[in-house]
Amino acid sequence: MRQAQHTLTVATKGKGLVEITREVKRWVEGQGISTGLLTLYCRHTSASLLIQENADPDVRTDLETFFEEIAPETRDYVHDAEGPDDMPAHIRTALTHTSLSVPVISGALALGTWQGIYLFEHRRAPHSREVVLHLIGE
Amino acid sequence: MRQAQHTLTVATKGKGLVEITREVKRWVEGQGISTGLLTLYCRHTSASLLIQENADPDVRTDLETFFEEIAPETRDYVHDAEGPDDMPAHIRTALTHTSLSVPVISGALALGTWQGIYLFEHRRAPHSREVVLHLIGE
Amino acid sequence: MRQAQHTLTVATKGKGLVEITREVKRWVEGQGISTGLLTLYCRHTSASLLIQENADPDVRTDLETFFEEIAPETRDYVHDAEGPDDMPAHIRTALTHTSLSVPVISGALALGTWQGIYLFEHRRAPHSREVVLHLIGE
Repeated sequence: MRQAQHTLTVATKGKGLVEITREVKRWVEGQGISTGLLTLYCRHTSASLLIQENADPDVRTDLETFFEEIAPETRDYVHDAEGPDDMPAHIRTALTHTSLSVPVISGALALGTWQGIYLFEHRRAPHSREVVLHLIGE
Repeated sequence: MRQAQHTLTVATKGKGLVEITREVKRWVEGQGISTGLLTLYCRHTSASLLIQENADPDVRTDLETFFEEIAPETRDYVHDAEGPDDMPAHIRTALTHTSLSVPVISGALALGTWQGIYLFEHRRAPHSREVVLHLIGE
Repeated sequence: MRQAQHTLTVATKGKGLVEITREVKRWVEGQGISTGLLTLYCRHTSASLLIQENADPDVRTDLETFFEEIAPETRDYVHDAEGPDDMPAHIRTALTHTSLSVPVISGALALGTWQGIYLFEHRRAPHSREVVLHLIGE
């Protein structure tokens, strides 16, 4: 049994879903692990992880609209020192995922046909985000 | 340290929570692992995983109503080519879980007294869903 | 490769976020694992796990308000035999996390600068909650 770890740095352009499937796959496939488990971990509280459909880009638009409306910037928050988009970002992070695990079968991620892995940026400004990858298997 | 993997196929009858605790337990207990970690992974973006109360079926009814109302089919979505229930299904998947992990202690899943494992079908039509089980331990 | 497991008992004072970062860190650092993966598992359906900002306490206040409003006690639930706060507790659990994983790098949890680990109590009354910790690595 072996382990490997890697930190992926993801540049975001402000609010929205950034697909990282290709970068994640490339790293996993380079580790020579045939059977195992990949865990992704997002080191932030205003960005998160999501596995979603990667076929129709309209799905991403509707997801972004939904999360915009469920935690609107116009709401009255106690925590507002870091800007109107900060507290909504924490709420959206709570509603989505900080960690995600995907099995590795025959050397490949067990993603379904339409599944892509996304970093979900919740702040207005572009950010540099860190996603830690942990792989265990043999 | 050993690993085992298995794909569970779950037949759904349209929207709703389908309990899979028994099938998952049966597979885990057949692997001869005493101490370890089970990870479940749902290979879909319109169905998800949830650990919830398995005592009163009313809890499932209320959960289904809640998720029906938070992402209603009547809402105006950009993505509507696959039917009015498709985009709500993606949103409900984002709000619940694509992967879940449960420790194995003394050969048994560490589920609490009232916890059951569910596949949450978000589409109207019956589907065949794949849940990958990954077990590591010894 | 080694594993270690431990059950953390968390006393809550009713609804709210209880930080458990220190207790989790202390246990992890005592296991002598340099590279690995920690998984936390909450054995309840009316309490859950969350990784959130641990700097400004106002963030916790706003999160608690958000979850209070998204699943209000005043709503009409079918399941109400266990009190008006029970069904909202199940919904809040579904929207947050029952399991969470955090990589261990150089003997320390890979938490970001502002990240803390919280148990989220969703019932009005104080409870004793169990969080199972599973660590694998070497």
